[in-house]
Amino acid sequence: MSRIDGRTPDQLRPVTIERGWSKHAEGSVLVSFGDTKVFCTASVTEGVPRWRKGSGEGWVTAEYSMLPRATNTRGDREAVKGRIGGRTHEISRLIGRSLRAVVDFKALGENTVVLDCDVLQADGGTRTAAITGAYVALADAVAWARGKKLVKAGRQPLTGTVAAVSVGIVAGVPLLDLCYEEDVRAETDMNVVCTGDGRFVEVQGTAEAEPFAREELNALLDLAVAGCGDLAAAQRAALEITL
Amino acid sequence: MSRIDGRTPDQLRPVTIERGWSKHAEGSVLVSFGDTKVFCTASVTEGVPRWRKGSGEGWVTAEYSMLPRATNTRGDREAVKGRIGGRTHEISRLIGRSLRAVVDFKALGENTVVLDCDVLQADGGTRTAAITGAYVALADAVAWARGKKLVKAGRQPLTGTVAAVSVGIVAGVPLLDLCYEEDVRAETDMNVVCTGDGRFVEVQGTAEAEPFAREELNALLDLAVAGCGDLAAAQRAALEITL
Amino acid sequence: MSRIDGRTPDQLRPVTIERGWSKHAEGSVLVSFGDTKVFCTASVTEGVPRWRKGSGEGWVTAEYSMLPRATNTRGDREAVKGRIGGRTHEISRLIGRSLRAVVDFKALGENTVVLDCDVLQADGGTRTAAITGAYVALADAVAWARGKKLVKAGRQPLTGTVAAVSVGIVAGVPLLDLCYEEDVRAETDMNVVCTGDGRFVEVQGTAEAEPFAREELNALLDLAVAGCGDLAAAQRAALEITL
Amino acid sequence: MSRIDGRTPDQLRPVTIERGWSKHAEGSVLVSFGDTKVFCTASVTEGVPRWRKGSGEGWVTAEYSMLPRATNTRGDREAVKGRIGGRTHEISRLIGRSLRAVVDFKALGENTVVLDCDVLQADGGTRTAAITGAYVALADAVAWARGKKLVKAGRQPLTGTVAAVSVGIVAGVPLLDLCYEEDVRAETDMNVVCTGDGRFVEVQGTAEAEPFAREELNALLDLAVAGCGDLAAAQRAALEITL
Amino acid sequence: MSRIDGRTPDQLRPVTIERGWSKHAEGSVLVSFGDTKVFCTASVTEGVPRWRKGSGEGWVTAEYSMLPRATNTRGDREAVKGRIGGRTHEISRLIGRSLRAVVDFKALGENTVVLDCDVLQADGGTRTAAITGAYVALADAVAWARGKKLVKAGRQPLTGTVAAVSVGIVAGVPLLDLCYEEDVRAETDMNVVCTGDGRFVEVQGTAEAEPFAREELNALLDLAVAGCGDLAAAQRAALEITL
Amino acid sequence: MSRIDGRTPDQLRPVTIERGWSKHAEGSVLVSFGDTKVFCTASVTEGVPRWRKGSGEGWVTAEYSMLPRATNTRGDREAVKGRIGGRTHEISRLIGRSLRAVVDFKALGENTVVLDCDVLQADGGTRTAAITGAYVALADAVAWARGKKLVKAGRQPLTGTVAAVSVGIVAGVPLLDLCYEEDVRAETDMNVVCTGDGRFVEVQGTAEAEPFAREELNALLDLAVAGCGDLAAAQRAALEITL
Repeated sequence: MSRIDGRTPDQLRPVTIERGWSKHAEGSVLVSFGDTKVFCTASVTEGVPRWRKGSGEGWVTAEYSMLPRATNTRGDREAVKGRIGGRTHEISRLIGRSLRAVVDFKALGENTVVLDCDVLQADGGTRTAAITGAYVALADAVAWARGKKLVKAGRQPLTGTVAAVSVGIVAGVPLLDLCYEEDVRAETDMNVVCTGDGRFVEVQGTAEAEPFAREELNALLDLAVAGCGDLAAAQRAALEITL
Repeated sequence: MSRIDGRTPDQLRPVTIERGWSKHAEGSVLVSFGDTKVFCTASVTEGVPRWRKGSGEGWVTAEYSMLPRATNTRGDREAVKGRIGGRTHEISRLIGRSLRAVVDFKALGENTVVLDCDVLQADGGTRTAAITGAYVALADAVAWARGKKLVKAGRQPLTGTVAAVSVGIVAGVPLLDLCYEEDVRAETDMNVVCTGDGRFVEVQGTAEAEPFAREELNALLDLAVAGCGDLAAAQRAALEITL
Repeated sequence: MSRIDGRTPDQLRPVTIERGWSKHAEGSVLVSFGDTKVFCTASVTEGVPRWRKGSGEGWVTAEYSMLPRATNTRGDREAVKGRIGGRTHEISRLIGRSLRAVVDFKALGENTVVLDCDVLQADGGTRTAAITGAYVALADAVAWARGKKLVKAGRQPLTGTVAAVSVGIVAGVPLLDLCYEEDVRAETDMNVVCTGDGRFVEVQGTAEAEPFAREELNALLDLAVAGCGDLAAAQRAALEITL
Repeated sequence: MSRIDGRTPDQLRPVTIERGWSKHAEGSVLVSFGDTKVFCTASVTEGVPRWRKGSGEGWVTAEYSMLPRATNTRGDREAVKGRIGGRTHEISRLIGRSLRAVVDFKALGENTVVLDCDVLQADGGTRTAAITGAYVALADAVAWARGKKLVKAGRQPLTGTVAAVSVGIVAGVPLLDLCYEEDVRAETDMNVVCTGDGRFVEVQGTAEAEPFAREELNALLDLAVAGCGDLAAAQRAALEITL
Repeated sequence: MSRIDGRTPDQLRPVTIERGWSKHAEGSVLVSFGDTKVFCTASVTEGVPRWRKGSGEGWVTAEYSMLPRATNTRGDREAVKGRIGGRTHEISRLIGRSLRAVVDFKALGENTVVLDCDVLQADGGTRTAAITGAYVALADAVAWARGKKLVKAGRQPLTGTVAAVSVGIVAGVPLLDLCYEEDVRAETDMNVVCTGDGRFVEVQGTAEAEPFAREELNALLDLAVAGCGDLAAAQRAALEITL
Repeated sequence: MSRIDGRTPDQLRPVTIERGWSKHAEGSVLVSFGDTKVFCTASVTEGVPRWRKGSGEGWVTAEYSMLPRATNTRGDREAVKGRIGGRTHEISRLIGRSLRAVVDFKALGENTVVLDCDVLQADGGTRTAAITGAYVALADAVAWARGKKLVKAGRQPLTGTVAAVSVGIVAGVPLLDLCYEEDVRAETDMNVVCTGDGRFVEVQGTAEAEPFAREELNALLDLAVAGCGDLAAAQRAALEITL
C-alpha cells in the first residue's frame, strides 16, 4: 500500500539544502523537505546575553516563524496580534535546544549565534526541516567565526551534526516524514531529533487519537533513526562543498 | 547508591491527592508530589468555543501557571510582564492534550471544561503533578455535569484515566520522579504521560547534557510506565471515595 | 435581626492565620476570613529599585491577584489577557501603601520585600484579608532578614502592626466584615486599614447605591476600628509563637 | 500662619468652569482649580455595553489621562508604553463611580455617556477638578440628549449634582484643596466626593507619613464638606446660563 | 466659485499661535488653523538617547496624539487599546523629521527636545498645524536652553524656520489648507513642509480617488509654497514678541 | 561620474519578477530590484471587513515585514517585541493605498485580497519593490477569483497597473532606484508610485540633510516617472506569460 505521494513508508521526501541564500547572514540555507520550505539564517554577534557574561561560554538560540500565507489558509501575523502563540514558542525552543546539543560553548567563546527559521511554504514537518537546515546555517556561521578569529585558533565549537524528522502512524502504518495530509490523519505523531552518530537529542511523541503502545513507539523510533541518518548524510553532502 | 532524599531509583515521592479544595469549582484538587504542590480546579461551562459550535462535541482545555514565589527565587508575574512565556504555553498545551486523550467529546456534548493548574510550591515535576491532579478534578467535574444532566443520561465522557511522571538520568542512573535538585543535574530529562492501561499519550525526552542512547531511552520508559501505574492507583483510590 | 451566616452586626467571620505555608518564601501565610482564603508570601531581596538606590532606605511593595476560579464563575487570567485590570492595580497599590505605613525604611536598609497575595478562594473582603495576612508574612520576612544580618543589629524595621477590615451598610444596618452576599447588597461599602494602636492608615468608603450621611460614616468607622483591633490581636497571637 | 499661596486653611483656589470648549462633544468643560486645568468632554452614544443590553438602563463611564507635559517633568505616554498605569486606572474608576452616583439609569434609557478628562496642566487635585468639571459636561450632554429626544420626555436622568475636593494635613494643620507643593508635604491626604446636598459619595483618605487619628479625620471631613458646598455653587452658577 | 467657508482657493483659514500656554514646559503653544486646535509643548532634557551618547550632538523628536473626542465621533484611546496606530506613528515621525530639518545638532549639544502635539479639536490639517505650532514651541525651548547655558554661548541651534500646510484637489480645483469637509471630498491630498526660505522638507501627496497628473501636482506645490510663506510670517510675528 | 554599482543615474537595477512562488497563495511573486528581494503573496477570501459589509464593494489591504536578518545587522522580530514599529506601519499603509488606486471595488464585489510583502533580503528600495511585486501577485489573485466566479462575469476589478521606484539626490546628483549605500548618503530621498499611464498615486519626498529646491524636485520626478514606466513594462512582460 503506497502513500499519497507514492513513497514507501520508510522513505523521505526529496530533500534539498541550498547554502548561501542571503548576502548578509553569516550562514544561510533554504531547506526543503518536499513542498515544505524553510529559510534559515544564522547571525553571529560578539558577546552573550547578560546572564552568561563572564562565563567564557557562548550561546545559541533560535526563533521560528511562519509567513502568513505559508499555509493553505492565511494566518494572522503574530506581530499584528502583538503576541507570540504557544506553538511558535514551543518550536523556537525546540530548535534552540536541538542545536545547543552539538555545541561546545567553551570552544565557541563569548559569541552568540541566533538562528532564524522562517517558513516560506508549509506542507508538514516544518520544525524538523527547520532543525535540519538550521544546523547547516549554523555550521557555516561557525566557520565564518573561525575565519574571523572570533573563535580561538584550533577550537571547534561543533561537536557533531544534528538533524530531525517526523514520524507517525497513519491508518495503523508507521510512516517516515509525514506531509501535511498524512499529518492531519495521523493517530500518533512524533518528532525525533538525532545526532549524526544516531543518539537522541529530543523525542516528542503525541497520541493524536488513540494512546499508543510500546511496540508502536519502537517502530516509530526505528524509522526516525534511519531517516535522521539519511538527513545527516544530506547535511554532510551540502557542507562538504566548502568546508 | 541512594538518592538525595533517600529514595530508590524507581520510587515515587509521597503522593497526595486532596479533593474538594474549592467551594466554587465543579472539581478541585490539591495534588502533591513531595514538596511540589499544585492546585487544580475544573470549571464547567455550557457551550463550546466558536470553532466547535454545532459539532455536538465538547472541549477540554488547560492553563498552567506558577505563583511568583513557588520557586526558590521570586519570578515576575506573567500578568505584569504582559505576556505568557514559552514554558508556560508549552506546559498548558501539554496538560490540555493529555486530558483530551481520555475524553469522549461526543459523550461530553457541547460543554467545556477548563482546568486551571496553579503551582503553589515547586520542587520539580510540576507539569506531571498538574496532569495527575487535573485528571481527578476533571473526573469530579464530569461527575458533577452528569449529576446536573448537562451530559446525557448513560453517557460516560471519560474513557479512562491519565497520569504523568518525570524520569531522567542523573550521574548515569535512570531515576523516577525527579525532585528539583535531581532535575538540575539530569543529563536527560523525560516526561511521560500514560493512560491507566499503560499506553502512551505523550513522551517528551530531552538531552540536557549528552545525547542519549536507545537503551537509556528504554530504561527510562520502563521506569515511567511503572510510575504512572502507581499514580493511576493513587487516582483511583482518591476517586473511589465518592464515585 | 441576624445576618446571613448568623453573625451579629459587629462580629468578624472566623479568622485563621497559618504561618510557614511555603518552604521557599522568607515569610508565608495562609489567611482566611471565613471562606475567603488568601495565600501571602513575602520575598526578601538585597538591594532596592533603581530610583531608591543610594538612599540607605529599603522598599516594600505588593502584588495582588485572584486565581481564575477563586470566584463562583471562572474569570480570565490577566496574564492571558496581557494586561492587568484596574481593580487588580488598585488593590495591589492599597496593600503596598498599607504595609509601608508600619515600616521604618531606614531601619530596613537597602533591602526590598515583595508581598504576593494570591486569592485561592473569594467570599468578600479579599483585600482586607490580604493586608491582614501579608502583615504577618512581612513580619516573618523581617525576622528572617534580621537573623541573616541583612538588617543592622539592633534595628527594628517594623514600627507596629497593621490590619484591615471591610464594613458596609446593608438594608440600612452597618455591618462588620461583609461576606460576598452581603457585599453585593451593600448600599455603602468601606475598607478601613488601621494600625495596632487604632489609628487610620486608609479609609476608602464608596456609596454603591445612595450617598451616605456623616452619621452613617461615623457608625461604620466605629465598627471598623473595633474589628481591626480584633484582627491585630489575632496577628499578635499568630506571631507570638516564634517571635 | 498663611499658606504658600496666601490662602486661609479653609479656602479653595480660584475655580473656573468654562463650558462649550469643544465644537464636537455633546458636553465640554475646561475646569481649573488654580493652576490645575482639566479638559472634560462628554460623548453620548445610543446603546449600552453588551452586558447591559436589554436592561432598559443607560451607562456612564470615564477615562482620565495626563498629557505628557502636564507636570513639571515630562512623563512617558501610556499609549507608547502600551499599558495604562495603576494610578490612571484608579482615577478613571473613581470619576466614573462618582458621576454614576447622581445618575438615574432608568431615566437615561439605553444611552451611554463617556467622560474624557484630560489634564492639560497639573498642580495638585487633578482628580477632584476632573470630577467637578466632568459633572458639568455630563449635565450639558444630558441636556443635549433630552433635546434630541434620546431621553424620554419628562425624564431627568440626573438626580443631583456631584463635586470633589482634596483635603490634607500639612505640618499638623488641616487644609482644603491642596496645591502640588502642599500635597507633596502632606502627612495625610484625602479626596472627598459629595453630592450637592452634602452627603458622601466617596471618602478616600491615606496616611502618607503618620497614621491619623479620628479627630484629624473629622477635621478633614468638615473642611471637605464645606469645600464641596462651594464647588456645587460654582457648578450651579456655570450651568444656570442655559439650564 | 467660493469654498464651504467662503475662502478663496489660495486662502488659509484664520491662524493663531498663542505662546506660553503651559507653566511647566520650556516651550508651549496653542496653535489653531480655523477650528483645528493643537496644544504643543517642548520639553528640554539634558542628555541624549543612548545611541547618540558621546557624539556631541543633540536630538529632537515628537509625539502626536488626538484626544478621544477631538473628532466628531469619539475614538478609543490608544493607551486603552495598548498599541499606537499606524496613522499616529506616521504623523509623529513626520513632525520629528520636519523639525530636525532646521536644527543644527552640534550647536544644540547633547540635549534633547521632545515635542508633544496633542490635538484638542480636529477639523482637518492637524499634522500641518502641529508642525507649524511645534516649531514655535521648539524656538521658545531653544531660547530657554540658551538662557540656561545648556547651549554653548554664541551657538544658534536653529538654522531657520519650518511650517506646513495641506493642499488638495476638490471637485477639480486645487485648494489650500483643507478643512475636514473638504479633506473628505478631496481627490488628491498633499501635505507640504517648507522652510522659511521656501525650500521643501517634505512633500507627501496621495491620490485618494483618481491618480493625478504632473500639472495638478505643480499647481498644488505652488499653492503650498505660498501658504507656507504666510505661515512662516505668522511664526515670525508670534516669536518677535520676545526673541 | 558613474555610480557605486556602475549604473548611469537614470538606470534601474536588474529587475526580476518570478510568479507562482507559492503553491498555496492565489497569487505569489518573488520580486528583486538588484539585491533587494521581496516575497509577495496575495490571499483571496470571500467577504469583507465588518465596516464594509453590505456595500457590494471589496477590499484590498497589505502587510509589510522584514525578516530579522534581511539587513546587514539582525533586527529584533516585531512579534517578539509585541508591537509593530512606526516604519512597518507606514510602509504597510503605503502599499495598501497604492494598490487600491488601481482597483474597482464594485467590480471586485465583496471579496478581500490581502497582500503580504515579506522582505527576504534588503538593499534599499524594499517598499518600492514590494509595491511593484505585489501588483503582479494581485493581478494573479484577481485572475484566480475571476476563474472561480467570485468576481461577476465580465467585470475587471483592475483598472490599470501600478509600480513604484525610489529616487534621490546623492552628492548633488539626482539618481534613480537607490541601493542601500546610496540611500544612506542621499541628501533627499523620494518614493514615487505611478500608474502604468504615467500619473501619480503617491509622491513622498523627504529632505534627509538639506531642504531641496523646486528644480531638484522636478528632476527627481522626471527620473521617477521614467523608472516607473520601465517597471510597468516589466510587470506587463511578467504577466503576459499566462494572462
